[in-house]
Amino acid sequence: MARQSGTKEVTKTSLLEAGACIMVTKGYNNTGIQEVLEATGVPKGSFYYYFDSKEDFATQIIDHFDTAQTEKLKLFLEDRKLNPLERLKAYCNAGRKALKENQCRNGCLVGNLSQEMSDQSEVLRAKLEEVLSRWRGRFAQCIKEGQDAKLISSKFDHNMMAEFFQSGWHGAIMRAKTTKNTVPLDAFMTLMFDSVLKP
Amino acid sequence: MARQSGTKEVTKTSLLEAGACIMVTKGYNNTGIQEVLEATGVPKGSFYYYFDSKEDFATQIIDHFDTAQTEKLKLFLEDRKLNPLERLKAYCNAGRKALKENQCRNGCLVGNLSQEMSDQSEVLRAKLEEVLSRWRGRFAQCIKEGQDAKLISSKFDHNMMAEFFQSGWHGAIMRAKTTKNTVPLDAFMTLMFDSVLKP
Repeated sequence: MARQSGTKEVTKTSLLEAGACIMVTKGYNNTGIQEVLEATGVPKGSFYYYFDSKEDFATQIIDHFDTAQTEKLKLFLEDRKLNPLERLKAYCNAGRKALKENQCRNGCLVGNLSQEMSDQSEVLRAKLEEVLSRWRGRFAQCIKEGQDAKLISSKFDHNMMAEFFQSGWHGAIMRAKTTKNTVPLDAFMTLMFDSVLKP
Repeated sequence: MARQSGTKEVTKTSLLEAGACIMVTKGYNNTGIQEVLEATGVPKGSFYYYFDSKEDFATQIIDHFDTAQTEKLKLFLEDRKLNPLERLKAYCNAGRKALKENQCRNGCLVGNLSQEMSDQSEVLRAKLEEVLSRWRGRFAQCIKEGQDAKLISSKFDHNMMAEFFQSGWHGAIMRAKTTKNTVPLDAFMTLMFDSVLKP
């Protein structure tokens, strides 16, 4: 039984990861279940054993991506070897590096889906907002710590700054996909760190 | 002949406007030509008289949208009754009002398509970049005038500030679609006008 449920877990994970991989490039509407099945070698019947619908599949892909992304956020934003300002910079530098290595393709799965699906599926919009709101809370906490340590300007509320940081970062990633260079990310980092966050 | 070409122009414009209307909500991939034909009552053969393909249709939709948006940008950013800083604020206030009246739905057609299509069509990516780059130039010009008038900080290059302004604004619109409120736009405007642009 343990072995069987282990295999099931592997199958489900491979569907989620193949789905995320295709969806981050092609979007929700342009991703076919058939394509995911072909990429994983999983039969159609099995897909519907794990997922009620394509919408349910995308919801679980977002959760799966959230788990990995939350680990990444913790790694950077709770790194006690760095001060809060350095942590935010390290997060941006890592994102910039990853995007550059990927020729500024794809961007962020959650950003992409929030742009595409917020008006098309209330289920996905609510899930995306839940995830983005939690991520923003982590930025807000880090900014608050920076404010308390007098490393970040206290002129504005940390939650508002986190909202600005998050939407600006997602906007810069979106722009970089279209410019196909890191200029928008560089502008974001310069103005964010040398102006907005500066005490 | 004049009358015939006038009718043709009307038909083409109605296809472009119906296409823009559907595409801004559903995205490129989820918009069917059939749906556009049904919305306009234009027969399929006529569609292919005006457009070579769906990609060509989207390219011309972007051009059509660009014409209207450029008029709007001129209206706000070249309004000599206001100083350059007030012009940027008026532009943002109008965008915020329009988004709010539309229950934070749809957002910007060009922003949506750049998120969805930049990795899926080099033709559309290049067109979107051409348009966005031109719009950014208008923001840069207004920021430069504000810097010259000592109303906007000259600490950073006006082109970099325009890039930050544009990507931050698009990011805030994208976030507002998911939060379904104007909080991301409010955070953008507060931090942009009370911090980044402040002399």
